[in-house]
Amino acid sequence: MATERKELSDLGEFGLIDHLAKGITTSNVSTVKGIGDDAAVVDNGEEYGLLAADMLLEGIHFDLSYAPLPHLGYKAIAVNVSDIAAMNGVPKQVTVSLGISNRFSLEAIDALYQGMNTAAKDYNLDIVGGDTTTSKSGLVISISILGTVAKEQVAYRKGAKVNDIICATGDLGAAYVGLQVLEREKQTFLANPQMQPKLDDYRYIVQRQLKPGARMDIIHELNTLGIVPSAMIDVSDGLASECLHLAQNSGVGVAIYEDKLPIDRQTYETAVEFNMDPITCVLNGGEDYELLFTISQAEYEKLEKHPDIHFIGYVQEQSKGNVMVTKSENVVPLQAQGWNHLP
Amino acid sequence: MATERKELSDLGEFGLIDHLAKGITTSNVSTVKGIGDDAAVVDNGEEYGLLAADMLLEGIHFDLSYAPLPHLGYKAIAVNVSDIAAMNGVPKQVTVSLGISNRFSLEAIDALYQGMNTAAKDYNLDIVGGDTTTSKSGLVISISILGTVAKEQVAYRKGAKVNDIICATGDLGAAYVGLQVLEREKQTFLANPQMQPKLDDYRYIVQRQLKPGARMDIIHELNTLGIVPSAMIDVSDGLASECLHLAQNSGVGVAIYEDKLPIDRQTYETAVEFNMDPITCVLNGGEDYELLFTISQAEYEKLEKHPDIHFIGYVQEQSKGNVMVTKSENVVPLQAQGWNHLP
Repeated sequence: MATERKELSDLGEFGLIDHLAKGITTSNVSTVKGIGDDAAVVDNGEEYGLLAADMLLEGIHFDLSYAPLPHLGYKAIAVNVSDIAAMNGVPKQVTVSLGISNRFSLEAIDALYQGMNTAAKDYNLDIVGGDTTTSKSGLVISISILGTVAKEQVAYRKGAKVNDIICATGDLGAAYVGLQVLEREKQTFLANPQMQPKLDDYRYIVQRQLKPGARMDIIHELNTLGIVPSAMIDVSDGLASECLHLAQNSGVGVAIYEDKLPIDRQTYETAVEFNMDPITCVLNGGEDYELLFTISQAEYEKLEKHPDIHFIGYVQEQSKGNVMVTKSENVVPLQAQGWNHLP
Repeated sequence: MATERKELSDLGEFGLIDHLAKGITTSNVSTVKGIGDDAAVVDNGEEYGLLAADMLLEGIHFDLSYAPLPHLGYKAIAVNVSDIAAMNGVPKQVTVSLGISNRFSLEAIDALYQGMNTAAKDYNLDIVGGDTTTSKSGLVISISILGTVAKEQVAYRKGAKVNDIICATGDLGAAYVGLQVLEREKQTFLANPQMQPKLDDYRYIVQRQLKPGARMDIIHELNTLGIVPSAMIDVSDGLASECLHLAQNSGVGVAIYEDKLPIDRQTYETAVEFNMDPITCVLNGGEDYELLFTISQAEYEKLEKHPDIHFIGYVQEQSKGNVMVTKSENVVPLQAQGWNHLP
């Protein structure tokens, strides 16, 4: 007579979200886009409002043994800003809800807020409220963000068209490789507390893990150039996973080129040092918070010489699938491993 | 050489919020009201947007040994709706961020969402996004809510004027006394697992604790009657605490009458059974999610016969302080104990 218990781990994070989304309908006329993009879109009359939320939990998303609190505060805001950027919008306000255990002193909370205030300044947004409570376990940081975008400029995950060019900003894989360095140094320290962590040679990738930025600079530049991406997403779960999201939502296929993928030298060399394939780090390492977007071929000229935008592939018919063309000119299926923040 | 560590418990929740708010400035022109009210107010052009967030943590805000998951889901939405109601606004969209431990099955998450979806229907709002992640410890439910209000109808905590009438909806203290019943039955069960909880005689107050509603009905009625409260707040921390918030924000004093305070018979009798003073439960018991607001005397007539709005006192000069007039006509200072969700 026992009913079968369905485990969350069998579903995975995306599976669970899909499952829950099925039971949810939207009824408000002001709801333009609900679950299923980087941010929800609401109609404010003159423009669209954008609403997103991201939660960071101690022991899952960060480890206080190596994440300095000001960096953590900065990152908590930046990852939310990145969701607004991914809609081609501008962040305006955030709420900050904190669950704090009694291990924390006032100075620790001040340090966390120092980073949040710096991020608020960098991204020209206001901290306007939230909630502060005791946590019986670890630190909980839950942020919601409100942004705006002109109605004709919103960029969804859907909208990529066949022959569009796929663009990625910055470089990829650094945050993931930086995390490996931090984990190694932590283990070294735990084995011998006299050892000081050796992070000097890894400064860039460690910074990319601990204090990532959101690419609002790119959003403002695209706006200045009069370019509205046909589709956009931020790279939080890994390039491959995000490419597949764009493809699925747009009803198209994607082809990317291994030799076009942007990777920093430090990322590459450290990946090799750790016996990891650098390209796997680029494809499946998460938390880069770069932007992945598509533009029409007509707009290519405007971005051609941009030093920080890379043309990594093109959009193709859905029937041709999602592939990567390797350096040796093999065509391999693009598969997502990405992160899975579920038990 | 040791620097002194400041403990959060010395500050309390409101002290910490005040401390953090001091370090925060707002710079966006669209930010009309930041930290310090039930919701933040942003200028959407045609109307005001309202943004609030509330987080519920297992072991702090709820106990899964007696909180049914559908009720918990409902409550998580309702307490956020109450923040929008307290600004005289209408809720439109929410984001739901969940931290889930691997003790949870898919069926458990479905039960939680069933309650959320029911609340979404009851309050005519849309669940538009959020975040789903593993939690290493307890269940984390973090909600943010977006609402709207006509610019000329927003109600802040400030704005109460001398001689205004203080109104409270529904009845107070029930949720707190209901919690005492649930705690007692839990202890009885732990002492003897053969014992079934006896909740039949306490149905109303237990329901008020487990599945409170937000008073959107009152907001719609006030709107229909053309009444904009001069000041408003929701009763989440206890009546006394909320009265003091209104007084402090409005730069006035308040006088309330013990014999006017609304208390349900079941609340009263159960408080007595527990050897608690019923009036203390009304003043300092939290989580009622009723509305406390002030109106001008000119508007009294419109509400005079409302069965669920109680006129509990009046606004006086700040110099006269904040007082309660007891049944024996003593004038005693109004003091807040309220809740303190800090270690």
